[in-house]
Amino acid sequence: MKPANRGARLRVRVVLREGAALGPGKADLLEGIRESGSISAAGRRMRMSYKRAWQLVDELNGLFREPLVRASTGGSGGGGAILTPLGEEVLARFRRIEARSSRASASEMTALRARLARKR
Amino acid sequence: MKPANRGARLRVRVVLREGAALGPGKADLLEGIRESGSISAAGRRMRMSYKRAWQLVDELNGLFREPLVRASTGGSGGGGAILTPLGEEVLARFRRIEARSSRASASEMTALRARLARKR
Repeated sequence: MKPANRGARLRVRVVLREGAALGPGKADLLEGIRESGSISAAGRRMRMSYKRAWQLVDELNGLFREPLVRASTGGSGGGGAILTPLGEEVLARFRRIEARSSRASASEMTALRARLARKR
Repeated sequence: MKPANRGARLRVRVVLREGAALGPGKADLLEGIRESGSISAAGRRMRMSYKRAWQLVDELNGLFREPLVRASTGGSGGGGAILTPLGEEVLARFRRIEARSSRASASEMTALRARLARKR
């Protein structure tokens, strides 16, 4: 049994401005881009269309002072993509926000878990 | 300018089980029920249909060992509703999770805000 599946868990989102947030999905996408070197490959891993993955990257890039992801166009097989230094920083900060929030909420989460109905 | 509107803010959700979460919306609904003594009045405040408010309450009630909201049926003008002791407890714990997560993430949130693009 994976711990993540045992009862309640916390999810955090950073609402950057009205209607635009950085949450676990976009963070995973950034991580996938770092690992695969490609926006479309990162999207595919998350069963996301090519178009959707690009939309999310465009949105993120527009929210910050500088882009978080830089795509290199062209080349055979299409271009690759990398996280910029700001992309690395934002991703790391989001993961710290997740970790710190979980740690700070641990005792309350344990108490909530104990109040949950038994699984049917 | 309201502080809540200046730059990024944190939103937390407690995923109670796959597909079922307690987030700011349901917490506000519970708070509205406590304040108004009525599920439909609490829903109305949030521009939610009567049916939707009841669905959310039913869902929450089913997730925990005991109901969070108890409706008294009948009477003229329809029945009222109250938070049970467990409802009060769950709401208070959720608000503490929000407060503790925000506090624990404050420095990271400040750094993220400083990286946001200027508003157009």
